[in-house]
Amino acid sequence: MSQPTVPPTRQQTPEQVRAFFDAHRTVRQYQNAPMPTEHLDTILHAAQRAPTDATAQLYSFVRLTGETKALVAELSTNAHIASAAESFVICMDTRRVRQVIEVAGYAPGLSPAIDIHFGIGDAVLAGQNMLIAAEMLGYQGCWIGGVMNNLSAIVELLHLPEGVLPFAALTIGLSAEDTPYRPRLPRPLVIHENGYQDGSPAELRAATTQMNPIAARPGKDGDWARLLSIYFGIGGSMEQRETVLREALKQQGLWAGE
Amino acid sequence: MSQPTVPPTRQQTPEQVRAFFDAHRTVRQYQNAPMPTEHLDTILHAAQRAPTDATAQLYSFVRLTGETKALVAELSTNAHIASAAESFVICMDTRRVRQVIEVAGYAPGLSPAIDIHFGIGDAVLAGQNMLIAAEMLGYQGCWIGGVMNNLSAIVELLHLPEGVLPFAALTIGLSAEDTPYRPRLPRPLVIHENGYQDGSPAELRAATTQMNPIAARPGKDGDWARLLSIYFGIGGSMEQRETVLREALKQQGLWAGE
Repeated sequence: MSQPTVPPTRQQTPEQVRAFFDAHRTVRQYQNAPMPTEHLDTILHAAQRAPTDATAQLYSFVRLTGETKALVAELSTNAHIASAAESFVICMDTRRVRQVIEVAGYAPGLSPAIDIHFGIGDAVLAGQNMLIAAEMLGYQGCWIGGVMNNLSAIVELLHLPEGVLPFAALTIGLSAEDTPYRPRLPRPLVIHENGYQDGSPAELRAATTQMNPIAARPGKDGDWARLLSIYFGIGGSMEQRETVLREALKQQGLWAGE
Repeated sequence: MSQPTVPPTRQQTPEQVRAFFDAHRTVRQYQNAPMPTEHLDTILHAAQRAPTDATAQLYSFVRLTGETKALVAELSTNAHIASAAESFVICMDTRRVRQVIEVAGYAPGLSPAIDIHFGIGDAVLAGQNMLIAAEMLGYQGCWIGGVMNNLSAIVELLHLPEGVLPFAALTIGLSAEDTPYRPRLPRPLVIHENGYQDGSPAELRAATTQMNPIAARPGKDGDWARLLSIYFGIGGSMEQRETVLREALKQQGLWAGE
C-alpha cells in the first residue's frame, strides 16, 4: 500500500503541537500592513480544503474591502473589521448546492433545520481552517459574533440571498497587541467518557474561579459568571440576538418553525 | 511592546502551509493501534484552546470506548467509529453555561436559535482544532454526520440532557488506506467580494464537472449532481434527517419554533 509523502508539518512532536495551539490569541489590534497576495491565496486554499458534509461545501465567504469593510465594521460595532488586513463574513450557504441540483435537472428538497446544522458546521470548518493557516503564517485573528448586532442590515448590504446566512465575521492580521494566555474550563467538565455527566455545584464553582481571569479588565478582578449572565442571563444580549436571528432565519428561508 | 516567543510551527512558508492542508484526507480505514496517552492529551488540549463565543465554551465531547463505542458505530451505521483509535461524539452544549450562571445566583435566559448557532459553532471550532492537532501528529480522521441516522437513540445511550445535542462524530487514527486528493468548487463560487454573486448556469455546470471525481467509485465515473440529489433532493436523506433532527431539538429543549 503506497502512502503519499508526509510533509514535515505533519510530523510534529506533541510539544510542538501544544506550542502551536498555546500561541493562539484572539487579537483585535492589528499592524497597519496589507496581507501579501500569496498569503491570502494560501489561507483561502486552506479554507477550501476543509472537510465538508456530504461533499456539498455548504458555505460562502464574503471578503470585505473598501467602503463595505468600513460599513460592516460599523454595523457589527467591531471597529477591527475595518483595521484588519483581511476581514470576511463567514456564511452558511445551502443555496448553491440546490442550484447545482436544479441545473442538473433534479428537484431540490427542503430541510431548514438540517441546513442550519450542517451549514454552520461547514462554514466553521472552512473558517477555522483559514484562521489556522493564517496562524501558521504568523498572523492572528478574531472570530466576531457581533454580525448579529445588525444582522438584517448586513444581509442587505452584502446582498445575501435565500439560503445564505452569516455565522460570524473573521478578521486576520499581524498582531499589534500583547494579549494574555486565557483560561479554559477544567477538562472533566468538557470531555466526558461514554456518557454525559453534569458538574456538581462545587465543580462548577471551582471552574468559575479558574475562568475568572478571562473576565478581568485592567485594575479590575474578573467575575466570569457575571460576564456570562450579561450574555446568557435573562434579558441578556443573547435573548436580544435571538429576536434578530429568528427574523433573519425567516427572511433567508431557513426557519424550521411553523 | 513585548510579544510572546513565536514557536517555529507559526513561522511556516506558504508552501509548507499548502502542503499541510493538501495532505488532509477523510480516512475511514485505520491501523489497529491505540493512540498513546500523550497524543490523546495533546489533541484534547488543542480542542480546548479553540476560539469560543463569548468565553462560554458551548460544547462537550463524549469520548467513546468499549461497548459504547461499538454501539454508536452501529447506531450511526459508521463501522469506523468502532475501529478508529479514538472516536468522539462532538456536541453543542448550552447547558453548562446556564448551570454556571445559576450556581452564581443569576437567572439564565432563553435563546434556542442563538444556542444552536453559536453552540454548533463552538463545537466545530473545538473539534476541528482537535482534528488538525491530530493531523500535525501524523493522524487522519473523519467527521461523521451519520449520528443523525439514529439521533434519539444516541442521545439516550450517551445520557445527553437538555441543552446538549450531537453535531457529528469524529474519528481519529493512523491511516490504513490510500485516499485520493479530492476536488473542491472553483473559488469564485465560494469566495465573494463585498457582495454575494450567484453562479451562472454555465458556471454551475462547469463546477459540477470539476467536482464529479468526488462521486466516482472504482470502475464508475462520478456524477456529483446526482450524488447531491440523493442527499439534498426531494425525498433525499436530508429531508429524512430533518424529521429526526426536529424531534431531537424539541426533546433537548433547543426548538425555536412555536
